[in-house]
Amino acid sequence: MGAARFLRGLLPLIEPRNLTVIVNTTDDESFFGLHVSPDLDTVTYTLAGVSERKRGWGLQGDTFRCLDALGRYYDETWFQLGDRDLATHLFRTEALRRGRTLTAVTRDIAKAFGLDCRILPMSDQPVRTRIEVRGAGTLDFQDYLVRRRARGEVRAIRLAGIGKARPAPGVLKALRESDAIVLPPSNPFVSILPILKIRGVKRALRDSGAPVAAVSPLIGGAPVKGPLDRMLAGTGHAVSSSGVASLYRDIASVFVIDRRDAAESRAIEKLGLRAVVTDTYMKTPARARKLAGTVLAELASAK
Amino acid sequence: MGAARFLRGLLPLIEPRNLTVIVNTTDDESFFGLHVSPDLDTVTYTLAGVSERKRGWGLQGDTFRCLDALGRYYDETWFQLGDRDLATHLFRTEALRRGRTLTAVTRDIAKAFGLDCRILPMSDQPVRTRIEVRGAGTLDFQDYLVRRRARGEVRAIRLAGIGKARPAPGVLKALRESDAIVLPPSNPFVSILPILKIRGVKRALRDSGAPVAAVSPLIGGAPVKGPLDRMLAGTGHAVSSSGVASLYRDIASVFVIDRRDAAESRAIEKLGLRAVVTDTYMKTPARARKLAGTVLAELASAK
Repeated sequence: MGAARFLRGLLPLIEPRNLTVIVNTTDDESFFGLHVSPDLDTVTYTLAGVSERKRGWGLQGDTFRCLDALGRYYDETWFQLGDRDLATHLFRTEALRRGRTLTAVTRDIAKAFGLDCRILPMSDQPVRTRIEVRGAGTLDFQDYLVRRRARGEVRAIRLAGIGKARPAPGVLKALRESDAIVLPPSNPFVSILPILKIRGVKRALRDSGAPVAAVSPLIGGAPVKGPLDRMLAGTGHAVSSSGVASLYRDIASVFVIDRRDAAESRAIEKLGLRAVVTDTYMKTPARARKLAGTVLAELASAK
Repeated sequence: MGAARFLRGLLPLIEPRNLTVIVNTTDDESFFGLHVSPDLDTVTYTLAGVSERKRGWGLQGDTFRCLDALGRYYDETWFQLGDRDLATHLFRTEALRRGRTLTAVTRDIAKAFGLDCRILPMSDQPVRTRIEVRGAGTLDFQDYLVRRRARGEVRAIRLAGIGKARPAPGVLKALRESDAIVLPPSNPFVSILPILKIRGVKRALRDSGAPVAAVSPLIGGAPVKGPLDRMLAGTGHAVSSSGVASLYRDIASVFVIDRRDAAESRAIEKLGLRAVVTDTYMKTPARARKLAGTVLAELASAK
């Protein structure tokens, strides 16, 4: 998850208490009766330095003995839940059943991992990404992404519940009071735009007056991981950094792209965004830190 | 758990389809939002030959990585839940939430372990054992047994909900149609009597006309494991096999005791029960099988 790597690079550069991360929850899903929030957990685990870096999800060195045993009871155990990771899902599920909000549980989990920054779900109400795939109908996001490994032609991406969702407590205030806002290198359709589409979020972003920088999730015109290329194509956008930039044109003022996509600069500038060309491939934590530093510097100069 | 060991000894001696095990559920408890049924699981795991024999609960070779990770979120993780064992609790909890009965879930679990015998919870309604301990108030059973390691003087044993509980579907029919009934060597207060106290159970037992044999859980006047001695003393009963026999006098006709308690025979016979003296210590599966064989022979001759 590019966003998590970017955040991990950002963390040493700023006072953690000044960092608020607003996280997509549209790929939350229920497995074996547990409320799983993949993006929230990836952000928390990555910021805490305990995530499985290569795999991109879950906890480092985790085992899968419970999942293996679940195979005795369930036909389908394609969603990978590690034994230690399960503790987070159990805790979250039990707390939500007791009536706590996702915001409160997310805070408790971050605290349990000793994090000082603030991690907020985008909303306490459920919003779910559904992917319409040619010939396969409309799929839940994890079904599409994990079980079917994102195969097939994307015809549409829907956000069920987006109209009714309110921003989680603290989201609008954090945006309004921001000095700088980053849209990290993530899939816009299933990670960034869902947040921006929640009632009041775009307005808060504008009201803040803070500069907004987006980092392209494409490198050399292709996603580092995941089905973003199919999603761009399937929704009528160019499969390119400028294609992504067009999604943020009314929001961001700076758009950061990789050197391999330098030729896109012109098209990006035409959209009214300032194009910044740098190395965006975060192969190591050091590179993530360097990229975050560049973005912060650009934001500072954009004020 | 003596009952589970006894059942494991019994299994090779009879056609599994002819065996119905009715299991106490009064020590069921909720941990981390999961519905845990310790006695049902011990019976299922033991009959399936996958239980941790020495420890007496859980699955052989199980690990505790999730429980360890739960320590990050919860102050108290004294109830031991193995990683593979967790799959059973997750499956049960989810199925119950979907509206399935404990009876149905128990059948599914037994089936998943390839068991052909029938395992029934005593009731689909919750009944809970509460132990009143001098100076500690009234405690939930697992709190008393596991967390406090059964310390302290027992003043009373209560069964919350027993008045409202109905026998699980199949329980009365199984009893009525039985050829022989065994009360295995378990704690009468928290394992056997709760079942007998459910509305209609004693009558079904009598209506069946089947001989009933009980096996004393005491050897040499002491429990092999657990706080039965304190419970007998605390409720005004003799801490002896005849003390236990007195609890079954209106139910059983045969009472099996260990050689070390042979001197109890007379007192037992006085209660109107036939005393059978044999080796009741089930140190090995072979010994459990031998004990089960003796009990079956006594039941056959008692018809």
